[in-house]
Amino acid sequence: MTQYKIPVLPGDGIGPEIIAEGRKVIDAAGERFGFDVEWIEYPQGADHYLETGELISEDTLKELSGYPAIYLGSIGDPRIAPGVLEKGILLTARFYFDEYVNLRPIKLLDGVWTPLKDKTSKDIDFVVVRENTEDFYVGVGGRAKTGASKDLLEVKRTLYSAKFGLDIETDSEEIGYQIGLISKEGTDRVIEYAFDLAENRKKHVSSVDKANVLSDIYGFWREEFNAISAKHPGVTTDFNFVDAVTMWFVKNPEWFDVVVTPNMFGDIITDLGAMIQGGLGLAPGGNINPKGTSMFEPIHGSAPKYKGQNKVNPIATIWAGAMLIEHLGEKEAADTIVNAIQKNILDGKVKTYDLGGKSTTSDVGDDITRIVRGE
Amino acid sequence: MTQYKIPVLPGDGIGPEIIAEGRKVIDAAGERFGFDVEWIEYPQGADHYLETGELISEDTLKELSGYPAIYLGSIGDPRIAPGVLEKGILLTARFYFDEYVNLRPIKLLDGVWTPLKDKTSKDIDFVVVRENTEDFYVGVGGRAKTGASKDLLEVKRTLYSAKFGLDIETDSEEIGYQIGLISKEGTDRVIEYAFDLAENRKKHVSSVDKANVLSDIYGFWREEFNAISAKHPGVTTDFNFVDAVTMWFVKNPEWFDVVVTPNMFGDIITDLGAMIQGGLGLAPGGNINPKGTSMFEPIHGSAPKYKGQNKVNPIATIWAGAMLIEHLGEKEAADTIVNAIQKNILDGKVKTYDLGGKSTTSDVGDDITRIVRGE
Ligand SMILES: CC(C)[C@H](C(=O)O)[C@@H](O)C(=O)O
Ligand SMILES: CC(C)[C@H](C(=O)O)[C@@H](O)C(=O)O
Repeated sequence: MTQYKIPVLPGDGIGPEIIAEGRKVIDAAGERFGFDVEWIEYPQGADHYLETGELISEDTLKELSGYPAIYLGSIGDPRIAPGVLEKGILLTARFYFDEYVNLRPIKLLDGVWTPLKDKTSKDIDFVVVRENTEDFYVGVGGRAKTGASKDLLEVKRTLYSAKFGLDIETDSEEIGYQIGLISKEGTDRVIEYAFDLAENRKKHVSSVDKANVLSDIYGFWREEFNAISAKHPGVTTDFNFVDAVTMWFVKNPEWFDVVVTPNMFGDIITDLGAMIQGGLGLAPGGNINPKGTSMFEPIHGSAPKYKGQNKVNPIATIWAGAMLIEHLGEKEAADTIVNAIQKNILDGKVKTYDLGGKSTTSDVGDDITRIVRGE
Repeated sequence: MTQYKIPVLPGDGIGPEIIAEGRKVIDAAGERFGFDVEWIEYPQGADHYLETGELISEDTLKELSGYPAIYLGSIGDPRIAPGVLEKGILLTARFYFDEYVNLRPIKLLDGVWTPLKDKTSKDIDFVVVRENTEDFYVGVGGRAKTGASKDLLEVKRTLYSAKFGLDIETDSEEIGYQIGLISKEGTDRVIEYAFDLAENRKKHVSSVDKANVLSDIYGFWREEFNAISAKHPGVTTDFNFVDAVTMWFVKNPEWFDVVVTPNMFGDIITDLGAMIQGGLGLAPGGNINPKGTSMFEPIHGSAPKYKGQNKVNPIATIWAGAMLIEHLGEKEAADTIVNAIQKNILDGKVKTYDLGGKSTTSDVGDDITRIVRGE
């Protein structure tokens, strides 16, 4: 019997409810496929922060870095300003563990309603590889008032005057600014991951950028993409401006196989991707460091208004659990879970409100568990 | 007879073909509603650049700034690196004329196919007010190698070491970076424009940001939004993270009335908006400086592969022409053009390939002209 230790952070809002179902399903898969999971629970989240003032400590991060994979519920709470928990826990973990790939399958299961006309499960089946440690997520920015940071106040004035000979008044102005940066190593490793993935799929990689406007940062991305592409002659490629890619996701999702994208654009287009695959209740994600600690989560938030109601769809979390155990090497068990999700949906009897049903979170978890057991 | 002088930049690719139809329709509207247009043609675009090395000169910009409104076709050519013409002409003009509002109606006309299930013209009818002179469009960025710009190479290292005590090797790294900035004045004026617009519509303004991650720049945006919102007690508001807003455009477009957004997010979500209103062939836009020179254009690009084929849909450009003459004060003529577009579509006989027809660009222009004439 293989033994796994998996740290679990249920987090905020509906997190504990959906994580409970995910654990139930993984435990059942373990019984059937001969592995046993010891779950190690961590309290980080809003309550813990309000009680102790701690988001996630370096000791905890160090401890967690001893494990190959973490199971995460959801982070975020209306009592706390937007960004504090998300940055202080979720993004901190992604950065600390250097989880440079955010892997998000965009797959419409059979029997799921998509908002798109004329599209079926055959048309919506691709993977987004989102860079996960750089770009505009590095958290470098600030505010500047006159006197406070003359240099930055000058940026806009310089820009206008250099380009147009205009003299723009900025003396009384306040400015907010943000810096994004990508490194050669950081860009190469995620693009290489995307090409490796495509080698085992339909051998096509689409790159997303906005090199026609943010030319410094994404011109660099494009050069690196071209260099790595040259090493994979069997893989076809295309470039998409991020504005255009939102159109093609809606109009021609069947064009895509593997989509590789800088961090922020990846954040945007994977929410759109989640919607075309039937909604956030069905969209899992993995934050992956292939040689370190990875972290699997539903891509939705903590849905505070549904907290404690046993109402939301646990499928995204259960699916993220399947990705987690596949990452640990339990491919057959993972496939069995995904097939069980598919069967639960095709049966159409036990489903939550977002899919037009009346079942509870735990009803759905129970049903998928039953199918995993082969009952 | 009112006389207007309107500078026109047909631009690249299909630009000249679609602009010809737009002019035809405006001329016909002028005959009917008692105004006359003198078109002043400008050659800026790819050919002009390849022949003369000039993108758009300051003399030309100064000259153009004497007019209230410019009619623009499309800019972009595959012979020239991405961004050169777009930044050198289109963005330069937007900045030079300080056209701080990019106004993009997202309106599904009756009889137009939308990729969304169960949505009709009643559900898709809102306006995006995109900030148009700041944010990540200011063009400030660069590359850094070891030695070249020690400061910027240090950013990533500092970030990691300050937050986590990690020592990341950056010595051999190359970095691409980009800076976005928004000013108080620049933010306030566009948000105020959005509230004024909402006062005359359904009195709801949705703000788009990513304040939970890009907290410095968009936290500032959110504060300014709140301050201006307080001056408009009759207008309801909501906040949307940009990732989420792409979902709601697809799932619940009927929720929106006026959407106000920073520049780059506006670029992304208005392409998605164009798609849900039936595609780029139907999506017009205005770059507006209420007290200066404005510029009206289809939001699509120059579609080089269709150049000279008399094939693409001129409706976006004709609709942009209607916005232009409305801006000049010809409201009745503008409404007549939009109604003529609607009638052409409902008739369903004269339509280009993108709408499932076989008519040419000029057929569609002729048909709309005929309807504008009241024939
Ligand atoms: C919660 C937020 C910080 C996060 C992100 O922006 O990455 C989320 O939207 C996601 O996509 O996982
Ligand atoms: C061509 C490009 C520079 C432009 C932009 O990014 O603003 C276009 O996409 C638009 O939306 O008008």
